[in-house]
Order: sequence, then C-alpha cells, then structure tokens
Amino acid sequence: MTIQTLVDAFRSIRSQSVHACEPLELEDYGLQAAAFSSPPKWHLAHTTWFFETFILQSFFPGYQVFHESYALLFNSYYNAIGKQYPRAKRGILSRPTVKEVMAYRQYIDTAMAQLLTQMEFDSPVREIIIARTQLGLEHEKQHQELFYTDLKYSFSVNPLYPAYMSGEIMPNTRQVKESKQAKMQWQNYLGGLVEIGIDARSENFSFDNESPPHKVFMEAFMLANRLVTNGEFQAFIDDGGYQKSEHWLSDGWAAVQKNNWTQPLYWINTEAGAKEFTLYGLRTRQADQPVCHVSAYEADAYANWVNERLPTEAEWEFAAKQHAVENKEVMSNALSALQPATSDPEKDHVLTQLYDSCWQWTASAYRPYPGFKVSEGAIGEYNGKFMCNQWILRGGSCVSSTNHLRPSYRNFFYPDDRWQFSGIRLAKK
Amino acid sequence: MTIQTLVDAFRSIRSQSVHACEPLELEDYGLQAAAFSSPPKWHLAHTTWFFETFILQSFFPGYQVFHESYALLFNSYYNAIGKQYPRAKRGILSRPTVKEVMAYRQYIDTAMAQLLTQMEFDSPVREIIIARTQLGLEHEKQHQELFYTDLKYSFSVNPLYPAYMSGEIMPNTRQVKESKQAKMQWQNYLGGLVEIGIDARSENFSFDNESPPHKVFMEAFMLANRLVTNGEFQAFIDDGGYQKSEHWLSDGWAAVQKNNWTQPLYWINTEAGAKEFTLYGLRTRQADQPVCHVSAYEADAYANWVNERLPTEAEWEFAAKQHAVENKEVMSNALSALQPATSDPEKDHVLTQLYDSCWQWTASAYRPYPGFKVSEGAIGEYNGKFMCNQWILRGGSCVSSTNHLRPSYRNFFYPDDRWQFSGIRLAKK
Amino acid sequence: MTIQTLVDAFRSIRSQSVHACEPLELEDYGLQAAAFSSPPKWHLAHTTWFFETFILQSFFPGYQVFHESYALLFNSYYNAIGKQYPRAKRGILSRPTVKEVMAYRQYIDTAMAQLLTQMEFDSPVREIIIARTQLGLEHEKQHQELFYTDLKYSFSVNPLYPAYMSGEIMPNTRQVKESKQAKMQWQNYLGGLVEIGIDARSENFSFDNESPPHKVFMEAFMLANRLVTNGEFQAFIDDGGYQKSEHWLSDGWAAVQKNNWTQPLYWINTEAGAKEFTLYGLRTRQADQPVCHVSAYEADAYANWVNERLPTEAEWEFAAKQHAVENKEVMSNALSALQPATSDPEKDHVLTQLYDSCWQWTASAYRPYPGFKVSEGAIGEYNGKFMCNQWILRGGSCVSSTNHLRPSYRNFFYPDDRWQFSGIRLAKK
Amino acid sequence: MTIQTLVDAFRSIRSQSVHACEPLELEDYGLQAAAFSSPPKWHLAHTTWFFETFILQSFFPGYQVFHESYALLFNSYYNAIGKQYPRAKRGILSRPTVKEVMAYRQYIDTAMAQLLTQMEFDSPVREIIIARTQLGLEHEKQHQELFYTDLKYSFSVNPLYPAYMSGEIMPNTRQVKESKQAKMQWQNYLGGLVEIGIDARSENFSFDNESPPHKVFMEAFMLANRLVTNGEFQAFIDDGGYQKSEHWLSDGWAAVQKNNWTQPLYWINTEAGAKEFTLYGLRTRQADQPVCHVSAYEADAYANWVNERLPTEAEWEFAAKQHAVENKEVMSNALSALQPATSDPEKDHVLTQLYDSCWQWTASAYRPYPGFKVSEGAIGEYNGKFMCNQWILRGGSCVSSTNHLRPSYRNFFYPDDRWQFSGIRLAKK
Repeated sequence: MTIQTLVDAFRSIRSQSVHACEPLELEDYGLQAAAFSSPPKWHLAHTTWFFETFILQSFFPGYQVFHESYALLFNSYYNAIGKQYPRAKRGILSRPTVKEVMAYRQYIDTAMAQLLTQMEFDSPVREIIIARTQLGLEHEKQHQELFYTDLKYSFSVNPLYPAYMSGEIMPNTRQVKESKQAKMQWQNYLGGLVEIGIDARSENFSFDNESPPHKVFMEAFMLANRLVTNGEFQAFIDDGGYQKSEHWLSDGWAAVQKNNWTQPLYWINTEAGAKEFTLYGLRTRQADQPVCHVSAYEADAYANWVNERLPTEAEWEFAAKQHAVENKEVMSNALSALQPATSDPEKDHVLTQLYDSCWQWTASAYRPYPGFKVSEGAIGEYNGKFMCNQWILRGGSCVSSTNHLRPSYRNFFYPDDRWQFSGIRLAKK
Repeated sequence: MTIQTLVDAFRSIRSQSVHACEPLELEDYGLQAAAFSSPPKWHLAHTTWFFETFILQSFFPGYQVFHESYALLFNSYYNAIGKQYPRAKRGILSRPTVKEVMAYRQYIDTAMAQLLTQMEFDSPVREIIIARTQLGLEHEKQHQELFYTDLKYSFSVNPLYPAYMSGEIMPNTRQVKESKQAKMQWQNYLGGLVEIGIDARSENFSFDNESPPHKVFMEAFMLANRLVTNGEFQAFIDDGGYQKSEHWLSDGWAAVQKNNWTQPLYWINTEAGAKEFTLYGLRTRQADQPVCHVSAYEADAYANWVNERLPTEAEWEFAAKQHAVENKEVMSNALSALQPATSDPEKDHVLTQLYDSCWQWTASAYRPYPGFKVSEGAIGEYNGKFMCNQWILRGGSCVSSTNHLRPSYRNFFYPDDRWQFSGIRLAKK
Repeated sequence: MTIQTLVDAFRSIRSQSVHACEPLELEDYGLQAAAFSSPPKWHLAHTTWFFETFILQSFFPGYQVFHESYALLFNSYYNAIGKQYPRAKRGILSRPTVKEVMAYRQYIDTAMAQLLTQMEFDSPVREIIIARTQLGLEHEKQHQELFYTDLKYSFSVNPLYPAYMSGEIMPNTRQVKESKQAKMQWQNYLGGLVEIGIDARSENFSFDNESPPHKVFMEAFMLANRLVTNGEFQAFIDDGGYQKSEHWLSDGWAAVQKNNWTQPLYWINTEAGAKEFTLYGLRTRQADQPVCHVSAYEADAYANWVNERLPTEAEWEFAAKQHAVENKEVMSNALSALQPATSDPEKDHVLTQLYDSCWQWTASAYRPYPGFKVSEGAIGEYNGKFMCNQWILRGGSCVSSTNHLRPSYRNFFYPDDRWQFSGIRLAKK
Repeated sequence: MTIQTLVDAFRSIRSQSVHACEPLELEDYGLQAAAFSSPPKWHLAHTTWFFETFILQSFFPGYQVFHESYALLFNSYYNAIGKQYPRAKRGILSRPTVKEVMAYRQYIDTAMAQLLTQMEFDSPVREIIIARTQLGLEHEKQHQELFYTDLKYSFSVNPLYPAYMSGEIMPNTRQVKESKQAKMQWQNYLGGLVEIGIDARSENFSFDNESPPHKVFMEAFMLANRLVTNGEFQAFIDDGGYQKSEHWLSDGWAAVQKNNWTQPLYWINTEAGAKEFTLYGLRTRQADQPVCHVSAYEADAYANWVNERLPTEAEWEFAAKQHAVENKEVMSNALSALQPATSDPEKDHVLTQLYDSCWQWTASAYRPYPGFKVSEGAIGEYNGKFMCNQWILRGGSCVSSTNHLRPSYRNFFYPDDRWQFSGIRLAKK
C-alpha cells in the first residue's frame, strides 16, 4: 500500500460518514433513543477523536488539541485514556453543535493529511502511524454501520415514523424482481481438522480478535443456502412460538417475559396490515424477505422449533471461505439497499446472503481464540475486554460499509440485542 | 376586558414564548435532560396544542387539525383527551422539526385571531371562549417559566456548561450595586381568623386552586424580611448540616442519602473556586445572593438548624396581601434578570424578595381548599388531580412571566424537586 | 397513677405481646414478606430494646446490656442511638432464636420491675422514668397492632393461606347476628372555630403529635354514620372505577397502573366465589362488612365517584369528641374480633364504627400542629421526623390494643399503603 | 447395579440431606438471604418433589399426591410441569412447617421403597424408573452442596455471624498440619486431537450435558499444580487490582463498580485482623488457604495480572483424566472439612486440589457439546436450557457430596456469582 492509497482511502471513508448524514434534519443529529445507541453527531465526533487521540496527539509534533473537553465527551470506553461522559446521556449534549463537530472533523482531517504526507520515509513511527490510520478507518466503517442501526432505532420510537430515505426501496441487483425466494437447500461440508482465523501479519487488514489462526476439529455438517424468511418466522409465531417455553433457552424465556416480545423488533401490526419499520419508513412486510432484527434467543428458539440448530462460528467461517470467490463482488460492494437482500431463486444451489442481507447469529459465545494476546496500552481495549457474555454473529448486512467484510470477521452482540440487522441461517448435523 | 385587549395579550404572550428561544441553537430545541423537564420545542408545541384542543376544536366551526398525531405527542396529562406520548421520552422526538412546530404555532395563532375577532357578540359560547383563551395564556406563562428552569437543568449536565445569555448578569433595578445585603429583620403579624384565597368570579384571572376564599385561624407570627442567602446556607453546610440526621425529616434524610446531596443543585466547587451554574453559564457564587434550587427538605432542615420554621401558606398569603402595594411594580414587571434578585439593604424594614427572586417553600402540603370543586371535563384536570404529596411554594421568581403573580398564587412541587428557582424564607412564632 | 398501677400495666401489656404469638408455629416468628412489615420476633425484640435503651441504660445504675449486637439489630429508626440493621432484611435474621428473644424479654422485664419498684421517691429522674415507661407501653401497643397487620400480610402471600385463628370468626357483641347493615345516614355538625388536639400535660397519656391544642375554623359539615361496605365498593368496581382516571388523584392513578390494582388488597376471586383473606384464613367476602385494606387513593377515588369527600382530620376529631361517651366502651375494649366490626342496624342514627372496625383515611396530610416542637434527643425522633408525605387516619381498628384509642389519636401512613386495616368514612359539606 | 444397591443408595443419600440439617436451629430452615439461594427446608422439599413428580406420579399405580399445592411450591423451574412459586420468595413460606416437610419426605421415601422393591422384573418402565431414581439421587447430591453454599451465604449477612459447625475446623487428612503450602509448579500437557466428554451409555452415571464424547484439538499447555492462595490474591489487591480497569473484562469491571467489590465475598477486615466468614463462623484468614468465593471476573482479572490465563474446560478435563488414579480417593471421599483443602507441600509435583478444595473457573462459556440433544419432556429442562451466558467450572469442592465427582463433570454459574466455593487454577501456553 502506498501512502497515496492510504490518503485516498482516508479521504473517501471520512467523506462517507458525512455523506451518510445528508438526508438528516439538523434536529436528528443529536438523537439517542436508548443507551445502546448513539447520536449521529456523536459518531461523527468519536471517530474523529480516535484519530486525534491515537495518532495526532502521539505522533504529530506540536499538535494542539481542538477542544480540551472533547476527550471526555467523545471517548467511548478507553479507560486508559481517561474518564468518559456517560454513554446513556450522549443524547443530551446539544453542544457542541453540528457545525462545531464538522469543524472538528475538518481540523483533524487537515492534520491527518499533513501528518501522512509529510512524515519521513525512515521515521521510526511510520509503521505504527500507518497501522493506526488503517485501524481508525476500519473503526470508522464500523461506526458507519452503527450510524444506520442506531438511527433506525431512534426513528422507530417516534410515532411519526420518520423515513431516512424516501421513495422506493433502492433498486439492487441482488434483490430479485419477482417476490419468489430461493428454494431452501442444505449445503454439505465435510469438516475435519481445519484452520480458522487469519494471520494478523497478512497483507489485508484484520482485527486482533480474528487471530491467531488455529486448528479446530468439526464433524461433517450442513448449512442452509439462504436465511430464514419473514414468512417462515411467521409460522413460528402462529404456532405459539413466543408462548411456549420449551423452545427457549432459560435466559431467552426470561427476556421474552421481561420485554414482552411477541415478534421481531420492527414488526408493527396496523389496521392497514402487517408492516415493518425500515429506513424507508413504515413499509408493508414481505413474506420472502429474510427475518431481521431478532435476538440470538429468538434465533435459537426458531432453530429448536424446526429441529435444527445455529451453526458454530467455526462452521460458518469454514463454509464461507469455500464460497469466497462467488461472494467477492458482494463483499466489496458499496453500501447498498439499506434493506436486507432477498435470496435469489436462481442461486438456490449455493450459499447466498452471506454478507448483503443480515448478520447471522452463531451458536458460539464470544471468547478469545487460543493464543490471543491483548495489545499493550489503550489500543488493547479495542476488542479484548469485551470477550465474554456476548454471542458471535458472522457475515455482514445491508448497512455494512464498502470493503469491510471477510469470512473471518467476528461481530458480537449480547444475545438479547435486536437493533442490529441480525437474522438466522440454520445448520444441521 | 375588550376583545381587542385579549387579542393584543394573545399576540404579546405568544410572541414572548418564541422570543425567549432566540438565544438557542437549533440543537437545543429538542433537549431534555431529565423526565421532569421538557424540551423547548415541546413547550412551544404543547402550549399551542392547548388552544387547538380546548378552543379551536370545540368552538371554531370547520376547524381542521394541523396534524393528527400532535394530539398524542403534545398532550401533557389530560387523560380525558386521550393517550399521551411518554413524558420521559419527549427528548427523542427529533420530528416534528423546529420549523414544523413554528408553522404549527403560526397556524393556530391565525385561527385563534380569526375566532376571537369574528365571533358574534351574542354567541352562547363567547364567555367560555374568552375564559379559556385567558386560561390558555396563563398556561403559556407557566410554561414560559418552565422553559427557563428546564433549559437551565438540561444545560447544567453538559460538561461544556453552555450559557443561555452571555455577558454580564442583566442590570436590574432590584439588584443592588453594592454586594451588601439587607439586614435580617423579623416582620410581625397578628393573625387571627383571616380570609385566604380569592374569589374565582373576581375581575382578575386566578386559577381554580386559589379558590374558594375561606377563613383560616392563625396565631400571631413573624416572617423574615428577606430570603436566606448563599452565605448563610454555607454555614449550615460547614456545620455538617448534610451529615446530621437530626435536622431532617425522615423522607428528607432518605433523599439526601439516595441522591448524595451535599449542597444546593447548581453549586459547583472547582479548582478556581466556588461556582454556581446559571443561565449565564458558570459564574462565581455570591455569598449575598439568596440560596436557590434547594428542595423543601433542605429548606426545612435549614429552618430546623436555625431553630426557626417555614411559614404556612396561609401565613405567607396573609402577610403578602399587606405588602401588595409596595410589591405592585415587581409583580407586574417584565421577565428580568434570570438570576434571583439580591435583597436591598435600603429596604430592610419591609418584606422584600416576595416575587422577583426565588419561590419560597412553605410548610403546607398541597391540598384543595375547603369547598373546592373540580371542574367538569378535561379542563378539570388542570389542577385538581395533583393535590396530594406536593408542597406549596409561594411568591414568584426571577424567571416568572410578566403579570403572572399575586399573593394568592399557589405553586406546588414535590418536596425533593430542586430544579425550580426555589429558596427559603423563615418564619417563627 | 401509683407505681403499682404502672407495674401492673407493664406486666399486663408485656404479656399481651407474647400471648398474641401463641397461635404461631415457630417458623412464623421470623416471617417478613415485605419491607414495610416486620417479623413477629422482631416486634418482640424491638419493643424490649426500647425499654433497655431509653430507660435501663440511662437510669438503672450498673445495668449490663443483654447483648451488645442487639442495639444494631433492634433499633428501628433512631439515628441518634446509632446504626440500624436494614429494615427490609429483618426476615433473614434466623438468629437470635425465638428462645433467645424470649430470654431477652425476661431479662428486661425483670430489670424494669426492679427499677420501678426500687427507685427512690425523691429521685430526680423518677418523673422521666415513669413518663418513658408509659411511652414504652404505648409504643408496645402500637407494635401489637403492627404484629397483626404484618402477620396478615406475610400469611397472605403464601398459597397455602395459613390461618392465625381457626374456627368461626370470634363472636363479638359489636357484630350483628343478621347480616343487615345499618342504614346510611348523615350526621350534621355545625363547626366554627373549634379546639383540636390535646394538652400533653393532661392526666391521660397522649403522643407528642397530638399536641399542642389549637384553634381551627371549619364550616358546617356532615359525616356518614357508618363506613363504606364491601357491597358499596363493589359497585364502584363494577362501574369501572379502577379503569377511569377521572376519579383518581394523579399519583393515585399512577399507583393503580404501577401496582395493577383492581380491588382492595385482600380480595381474592376464586372459582368458589368471592373471597377475602383474613386472620381466619380465606373466607367468603361479606357485602355488609366495611371495605378494608384500601389505600388513601382508593378511598379518595371512591369518595369522588359518589360525589362526596373524605373528612379532614379536624372534622373527624371534632365530631368524635361529641360521641365520646357512647364509644367509651369500645375505646377501652380488649382486642377483639380480628375482623372489622359490621355496623349495627339498631344504631343507624349515631356515629358508629369509630374505633372497632377500620381506621378511616382523612383528607389531611400529616403535618405538625401549629406550635409543635420536637423533643430533645433520640425520643424526639418518635413522631416529628415523619411529618411529611403521609396521610392522617383517624379512629382505630379491630386489631388495635386495649385502652389505646382516643378522639385525638393521629395515625399516619403513606397514601399507597394498604396493609393496615384502613377503610372509608364519607363526609360532605 | 442390583435393585438392592439402588435402594441402599436411596436410603443413604436421602438420609444425608436430613443429617446435614442437624446442627440447624428450627428458625434456620426457612432462611433465604438472596434470590439466588434457597432455604434448607426448600431443598428438603424440592428434592422430594422431584421423586414424586418424575417417578411416583408417572409410574406408581394409584399413587396419591401428598399435598396438591406442593407442585406449585416446590417445582424449581420445570415449565412443562406447571407454574412455579417465585424463586426469590421461597424464604417467606413459613408453612409448610419443618415437621410437615419431614412428613412429606417420609411419605415419599416409603412410596419409593415400595415402588423399587415391588416392581416386576419385566416391567416395561423398569429401566426408566431406575434411570430416573439415579438421576433423582444425583440431583439430591447437587442440592446437598447447594444447601451448604446457600446456608453459608444466609448466615454471612447476619451480624451475629452464626456458625454451622462449632469447634476446630474438622481435621482432614488432606489438610496439612504445618501451614506451609505446596510450591507452585507448572504441569506440562501435550494436547493434540483429544476426546472430551463421556458416553451417556457407560456404566457409571453422568449428566446429559457431559455427552456426547467428541474430539477437540488443543495445543500443548501447562496447568498450575495447585490453586491460587489467599496470600497470592492479597498481593493482587495490594497492587490496586480492584482499582485498575486494565486487568478486567469490561463486564467484570462494570460488576466491580456496581457491587463495590474490593475483595473476595467472605473476606471481612475487622479491628481484630483479617477474617473470613466460614461454616465455622468468623475465623482468621489464612494466607496459605486457596482463595475462594471469587467470581469468574476476579479469577480472570487475577490471571491477567500475573500474565497467565484460565484453562479451557477441555484442557482441564484432559489433564484431570491423566490424574484420575491419584485423585480416586478424593473423588469418592465423604463430604468433609467444609473448608477448602490446603495444598500439600509433599505433593508439589502433581496436580492437586482438583476436587476437595474449590471449584475452578475455566475460560469456557457453557454451551452444548457438538451433537448434544435435549431429552423429550420436562426432564429435558434439567440442563439444556441453561446452556448460555454461564461459565464452566470444573473439579469439585469441600462441600461436594460423596461419590459425586468425575473429570467430565460440568458445573456452571454466571460469571458474577461468588457464593459457590469457587477458586482459581492458572494455565499457560
């Protein structure tokens, strides 16, 4: 990678964050409807603070911080850096204003461009600056996805059901014209003693939690060629799925009771029929769309109900690596429809919807890979300290960023989280 | 009162609500930092909804509601009207936008002007339209005060400490040049069997909770000529007042423990000295300013500590009526300094700071006056249903609206509320 | 009063506490089903600790405390004495055992008898020892009533519905053979400027909160001759009383929602008909019995529904004093039926059920009387610090102790409390 | 196994539950100090209900249930059986009395003995009766351990610090006379592709969660020969371990803040020195005893602090199987010292303290083994539905029952649970 490539990527990815905000009203930038979501303005500032803190303050001689309070306001969870403004209260920061945050982005972008283009070839910190810039950009891509999922949630609780995008759901080559979905087929995999994970020293970027590569033994298994659909999930509901404890994990059943769950997060039944809240506002629910915004508990209960199971993350990765070629275009595609891609009836014999529809809950708890070591210093807080109590999701979604996905990518959320684009792919022995 | 007077008042008071928002950034309009406070935008819309619901929809033939969802969004607590959007979540309504709310105000103002100027002299509903318009305007004045108290709270939790007003604290004839406060003096009152309250049929507006007038017996008593100051309250703190249970009511002591109270709400101790958060941002705390933003529990504990007591609401009203002439100007003054007026050393022999500084906690629980009847219908929900568990405050404050105050006015809040401009006037037998 | 009279009273009242426990199983002594209730064992120990702390430790030379930890375990709320074991956790103190607590009682009773009989006639502390012994005995009577109300609550949550008493509901002269209740009649009172309260220096015992006597002005009013019955309250329920917000105070309506109230506390509807949990176990609900175990909010809502109101505490006391003679026997009666007395159809022209049925919620908030002063020291914590946020109940109940009641007695609970024997007497202008 | 062997085991294990209660006062039987613990009486009744529900009601012709309400009261979590009395409120069931519960046990024991000795050799349900009786007995052994851990917790919150056992800590061959602990040594294991788990069809009993056996790949690793001691853990505390977020998982750090953890659960620092609450009451804390009653978070943080890690459950099991012979006596030993065994300095070259000291937190989340299937019906609720969000502990403890342990045994608790006898064994690559 040349410095120019990196500078171009920096410019492009940073612009994308601002570009994604264009359809917003100014009033939307501060919106935070739940502790687990963050306002658009906060995402814009936090990703900027990341470059300021981990690169400019450390490696740019004479750098002056933009505002001394921003370290408090826009640090997410890095205890080694200092205190953090309470997460649940990000929505009550009307100041700094959007204009001030945009000026902050401009200030940092200028400084970063200077640092990157002016640093000496033989600088002893050149390597680390490049590595951290790459990390900062991948970090920003993650927040670009959170921007969509958080905004969707925050809009959904407004009785006016605001739409982020207007008009028809964006045409997408991966979405089929006719509503007929792909036929459900099982793909067979032999398993055995296989290698999982990625070498952190390889050419392409990966997060620390994807390494080290290591051997895993798995028996032969099968994966569903496509995701479970709204129509199929409706059958689970119609059979009293949310009322029968026998399908559920004990903690899942407790979550059903506590939260009064009776259907996926954004399903809304109106007098005008079955609806779903989307980034296009309230829309008719489609039977052949993949079911989305379900918790791991709902995914697991559904799998029990059909006498199948969720795949382990190792099974998923092993299978996905075998389909890397046919999914290459999808993986590198630009951010797209903002609605999960429907399965393609013409491709019912391959593994589809890996990256462009919904993340897929696995049966695996999020734990470090054998031999994983946390990095020194604040950067070590990026992933390691979250490796418990969460579940792994694999794949990608219709709001994932361009060039962000790969078979080894480990996404993770708590099993009762539902605001991500999370769906269900079945496995069986 | 002529119709023209009413129309003028309508225009003037409605404009004042918008005028008060001028120093705000657009991002501030949606700000709600606690369930007990409301965003500026919500106040603007709710006061408008009041006219739409109680007047236009009932009495303006052919009236079309501005937006069908606003009844849900901007109804505060009128169960007879319908459901209400949850109070604690008003801050997560980024839509309608400020522009849309301003259009709503314009639409209602136009319709109200039409209704008021076009109604027939002999209309059977003329009386009730006038009465409800007056009520709507007094209601809006109450929200104008809440606008300031809510905004102050919402700004106070932002580590940037935004200022609503910049520059010096507004010059005010009631504020003394020199910092020397009035000498503390006791005013004597004979008491006896006296009449309290106001006749709802009298010429001037009053709320239903101020009537009916009724006889109350009271022994002779004394009131302090001025409010307790920051300096005096500091002595209570220095004596360990917040650590000694013997000064406190049991529920007050529990509130101290639960909320970790150690000083009044907006006191902030910094490395740069004793500060206080104000609508002018973070300012140096002044020893001779009245102590403000204390709960009824703190007011009561302070009074115990100095071996005095809080006045009953009847004592306060009886005394205030005897000082109506000298306070007339204050009562009718325009909204002013936005900081509590300091006592005037030249007026240490009269009862001062009745209306222009802080509301004064009384020893009286908020209950209906003997013979009080709740009005029929939704309007009856205005005051009656809140008549329990709250405590009476009397007087007025530096953020009360023009022409809004009178000796019989009954303000009420829960005894642990601190975000109003609430202070302490002592009484003794 | 002679010392012998006091010693006899001491022996008799102390015995009554133990006697009341006789029907219990040993397992019941530690039972605490809610933070607001206390286990029988705790009542036995706490009342004993009262004598040890306020009399023996102060005035009995050479007195050795029974157990050094009991001060922590059995202090209820006297901050001046020291720390208190958390109220909500009294039920998890399996030790000291019942046997140990009984030994504690024996130890204290012996010491108290010695102190009382041996003290010198001219002892400077003789007066205060006598006064505190009387206070301790009245305190124990209060806990004897709490023993019944707490036990009833703790038993009520057990699906086995244990009975404290077996057999028929105890025959009682005040309970009528036939189920026909007294006809509802209004009693008229002239009011005016009347004296309320009692002189603490009078011969008979009174609590500090009943004094000082003071003048109150009241207009003419009427009181119902008897309490509202289960049958009458059922009509309120049948009319949707618990579903219509218009009858309720705002805080009351919130309590209905939060607690899912649909009927009085111990009403239970079974397949075998309308039942009520009583100290005799689950029994058939009687239409002509007074409605009991309602909160102040329910009492107030019922009164609104019938277009009447609750009496003020001054009205109640003024009226009760005029009926002192005919209620004398009732007031001094021994603890009796453990179920509220039904009204007597032969006495429909007088004020009945003042003391032998249910406490009667008044419209008055619990505040100190004008001129009330808190006593010095820990004894001052007895009543004064609770004088806010609670409501006054007047009268007495079927579980009140012998010789404990009088017209001036002020009972007080939070308006959402329902586990006391609390009922409704209506008033009107 | 002959029927007589089973009948003897039944008699012996059932007696042990009652025997363990002998040191209790009657008041202790109902004690429940936290929702996660249960009263002794409840354990006695629930284990009895298990036999009644899963064997007698299903397979004993003409069986009459002992009490129709016990199904509600003593069902723990079997939704397929019916509703359950709320877990957190088991302590407020003073009835049934201890005597009644003992009668219940007697009734069931008699019926079980009849069923087992009278059933026909060729009965079609003979196999299942035997299997369920075995399961019921293993279930009772689990509750025998919970009896100790729950009782210890419930006693610990009583300021009197009651002792279950009096006198010296029971002499135990596994406890060394001199306080010198075993030297810390690393044991080496080669790993590779190994088999983990147990075949459910093997002769000896195992729980369903231990099967099916399956292959796991592991790299070479090392395990500490003994557990971490109090003295070693004190060094972590002295280094500010509980104040430095860098050692902790994010959820663990949140638990430290929320619960104000500063040391292991039962450590108590008094004026008389460092103490520890034990089943022998408050005792001096010993530096060479294994640290016990730590959460998984504390175990993980400690391991991070010393730059080691926790073992995976597969590593632990693989290693333990290689030490089965030398631990055979320990595994089959009778319940013993009620305090964790100290390491033996003479055995510092082998893996000790596997079963007789503290359970050992592993790094593994509790998930089903590959190929695991939940059994049909209510029995299937035994383990399967808990397989998420909990962490695996391996080994056994000083309060585990006789003949209850084996290398494949999977114990599981939430990572913030501390009331089990849970300690730390370190691993490294």
